[in-house]
Amino acid sequence: MVVGPAAGQQTAPAPTSAEILERSAADDWRPLDPEHTLYLELASGRVIIELAPSFAPNHVANIKRLARETFYDRRTIYRVQDNYVVQGGEAEVRVEGQAEPRGIRAEFTRKGIAGLPFTGLSDRDGYAPETGFSNGFAAARDPAADAAWLVHCYGALGMPRDEAPDSGGTDFYVVIGHAPRHLDRNVTVFGRVVQGMERLATLPRGTAALGFYAQPEQRQPIQSVRVAADLPAAERDRLEVLRTDTATFRQWIEARRNRREPWFHLPAGYVEVCNLPVPVRERRE
Amino acid sequence: MVVGPAAGQQTAPAPTSAEILERSAADDWRPLDPEHTLYLELASGRVIIELAPSFAPNHVANIKRLARETFYDRRTIYRVQDNYVVQGGEAEVRVEGQAEPRGIRAEFTRKGIAGLPFTGLSDRDGYAPETGFSNGFAAARDPAADAAWLVHCYGALGMPRDEAPDSGGTDFYVVIGHAPRHLDRNVTVFGRVVQGMERLATLPRGTAALGFYAQPEQRQPIQSVRVAADLPAAERDRLEVLRTDTATFRQWIEARRNRREPWFHLPAGYVEVCNLPVPVRERRE
Repeated sequence: MVVGPAAGQQTAPAPTSAEILERSAADDWRPLDPEHTLYLELASGRVIIELAPSFAPNHVANIKRLARETFYDRRTIYRVQDNYVVQGGEAEVRVEGQAEPRGIRAEFTRKGIAGLPFTGLSDRDGYAPETGFSNGFAAARDPAADAAWLVHCYGALGMPRDEAPDSGGTDFYVVIGHAPRHLDRNVTVFGRVVQGMERLATLPRGTAALGFYAQPEQRQPIQSVRVAADLPAAERDRLEVLRTDTATFRQWIEARRNRREPWFHLPAGYVEVCNLPVPVRERRE
Repeated sequence: MVVGPAAGQQTAPAPTSAEILERSAADDWRPLDPEHTLYLELASGRVIIELAPSFAPNHVANIKRLARETFYDRRTIYRVQDNYVVQGGEAEVRVEGQAEPRGIRAEFTRKGIAGLPFTGLSDRDGYAPETGFSNGFAAARDPAADAAWLVHCYGALGMPRDEAPDSGGTDFYVVIGHAPRHLDRNVTVFGRVVQGMERLATLPRGTAALGFYAQPEQRQPIQSVRVAADLPAAERDRLEVLRTDTATFRQWIEARRNRREPWFHLPAGYVEVCNLPVPVRERRE
């Protein structure tokens, strides 16, 4: 016979998000794929970016090709707008001996959601019919349009463009402030920073319009952008990311939706997709 | 007889948010009240904070008193957590000749919404029954509970605390990342930074747990916190803030909800309260 807890018995309190990560199993985590990982090297150190081939395969192939052609070496971060984006690549500058940059076809959304993993949030979202996580990335879906896309959360990597949709091709921006969700489906998001965000977020703000640096000498040098797979194993970081297709991840979301740490007096009962940065840690073996 | 536009006629396109500000009238703006304005002076320059007496009168009175007692002079910013908060004041440190810090009563919400100006958003919000703007601040309301509160957007000023609700009293934090809305109604928000956010957002991140600086010498000195009214007029900044109770402000919200700049291909049709930073500019006369 199954009975409920007797008087005086207590059910275990809901675990906190930290406890869920502590108790997680090894296979709740996945290593970064070095073929889809970029190292952006700045004077302050390395920024590690995970690329999203399931959402923007052409943009991923394009930036890997450019990195392998050393396109970004001798380039700069030339725009830092507070509470918005850092932007680099400097496509307008011709560098001797480097190929002419060209635009590539926009991948604002991915057509076809069948077969795309998606851990949806039950929480409603104002900007999209559905939000959740796909292959480790904050994402949204519109089943009626059979489309999915990555959303502009803190750390999202996107392709700057002019007015024409296909006008971007070489540069990149990273969100350093409150999620500019109005950019969703207006620009191609093709990755996210998984480590080193502070190296971008602390860069001096540009004082010209839109955060561009007023003087060329204020631009922040990019030492290089490399595909992790091209580096010897000893020079790679060894990070792993919490998988977003597991029961552990769903528990972690619930613990963030309703915070049970003693500090909280009022659990929110709600969480939005950009308030759920997917955990990253040093690899354990 | 009233007729619709004939073929070939065009209705005026909806103005952009920039156009709305350009066309705004002088009385769409209000000067900062120097009695409710703080100047936080750092090595890098001035951070200007507007206080919110209509939401947290005791916290406003308290920080003004402490500023006038020069409590913050010789103190520091001792915590900078990426995508979260900077925190300063250092209440745990006894400074010779300064009064013992003490906790003040929490003002997580304001009871009583009658008489409180509120320009509500039609857009739904996950964290609160209603969001909008009150006296220039991003705010939320729960009519059923007859309560209103300030929300944790980028730049919000809050009172750190221990587990007990009334345990904060001297220190302060400012949001430097994506809006941590789960903190709403768990902490007292009593102002916001209106100028100089970049001086806080670019501070070096602390490497100890929760972004605390690992070494005391890493702490960032606070030169002073002053009430603007206590400075000679010549040493005050002359800022004005877009009023949030006008038709102009409602038009500005609509222009941000549905961006009509040619760059945008897909207006979002939605905007959330923290994606509407209230415009501030140099005073014009």
